[in-house]
Amino acid sequence: MSLVRCDISVSADGYVAGPNQSMENPLGEGGESLHDWTFGLEAWRKAHGMEGGEVNASSPVVEERIANVGAGIMGRNMFGPGPGPWPAEPWNGWWGEDPPFHHPIFVLTHYPREPLTLTDTTFSFVTDGVESAVKQAREAAGDKDVLVHGGGRVVQQLIAAGLLDQLELHISPIILGSGTRLLDNLGPGVSFEQVRVIEAPGVTHLKYRVRK
Amino acid sequence: MSLVRCDISVSADGYVAGPNQSMENPLGEGGESLHDWTFGLEAWRKAHGMEGGEVNASSPVVEERIANVGAGIMGRNMFGPGPGPWPAEPWNGWWGEDPPFHHPIFVLTHYPREPLTLTDTTFSFVTDGVESAVKQAREAAGDKDVLVHGGGRVVQQLIAAGLLDQLELHISPIILGSGTRLLDNLGPGVSFEQVRVIEAPGVTHLKYRVRK
Repeated sequence: MSLVRCDISVSADGYVAGPNQSMENPLGEGGESLHDWTFGLEAWRKAHGMEGGEVNASSPVVEERIANVGAGIMGRNMFGPGPGPWPAEPWNGWWGEDPPFHHPIFVLTHYPREPLTLTDTTFSFVTDGVESAVKQAREAAGDKDVLVHGGGRVVQQLIAAGLLDQLELHISPIILGSGTRLLDNLGPGVSFEQVRVIEAPGVTHLKYRVRK
Repeated sequence: MSLVRCDISVSADGYVAGPNQSMENPLGEGGESLHDWTFGLEAWRKAHGMEGGEVNASSPVVEERIANVGAGIMGRNMFGPGPGPWPAEPWNGWWGEDPPFHHPIFVLTHYPREPLTLTDTTFSFVTDGVESAVKQAREAAGDKDVLVHGGGRVVQQLIAAGLLDQLELHISPIILGSGTRLLDNLGPGVSFEQVRVIEAPGVTHLKYRVRK
């Protein structure tokens, strides 16, 4: 069955971004190291058009992440830079002319904008909320899964609205101390069911089924 | 080498106790379910003088916890009830006449009190801070480990002061939403190193070496 799922790197103290996010530092201070476990992997490098790299217990997790995805959802803050109206000079995302997604992406924003196609990725801008974004992404995905790319606040909104089926945390052994905490503002009635745990070098992959 | 170590059950959103802790509800609202993974285990039941129970992937974790412990540290809020001066009617802990510790316990408090011995557990009340408590507990433990029993604020203080060597989180798949979050107020310069991960029914055991 088609799932709406998210996998995201978090610090041991639960942050998905450090403090003071900016154009120069989109993941906030210290946030880059949340992803240390991934950069050296062959599976990650291949998905980003690079050769070489390591194979370890994280490799199947990264391969599984990318497999069977038909559409994606992300927040305006991840498409960046935000918040506020779109700048006069067009902002076309962080990823250049050939974004690594290769599936339609629905960007949650308060500000309307025409769809943007870069190579084989089309970004559509959704202004009528998370339910609409999930509906459109599900339709675009067909039998495949909808992958929620982030950031943290969008994931929170989806969990709080009962729209996320599965959440996999990649827990890095770092302490950020402040920034954006993933599992906040969820409201009552949310529970998780532990599905799978994988120990890998420098990271724990912890997969939950989400219930609301 | 003798370690100062702590293992503690946390929710998926990082709380070690729910909101509104009280005499009737010492772990706060919803906090009891943090420990659901442990009550049915033979290893836990045996340590609390009961027979029967289950053996699963959590069993060696519980056995390891209890092994090689020479002394313990706990906060006044765990010895309970707190805060404030000791009540006129003596409060001798939550555990009755035969507490399950069987080693000397150093209770951090602002209020002096004579040591209290119940069967083979002696509670000493330390009023001059966490460094003193660790020093006294290390001396009492000799070659064995010092186990930090909690609660959350004492663990925070020990990490922030660079006095904790090892932290094992038992991550329950529940969301508490508010209460006492373990990994808060740690200050700068704290980092963890992932030592071991164990997947068990309804819980993930994640062990860190603590650095400061």
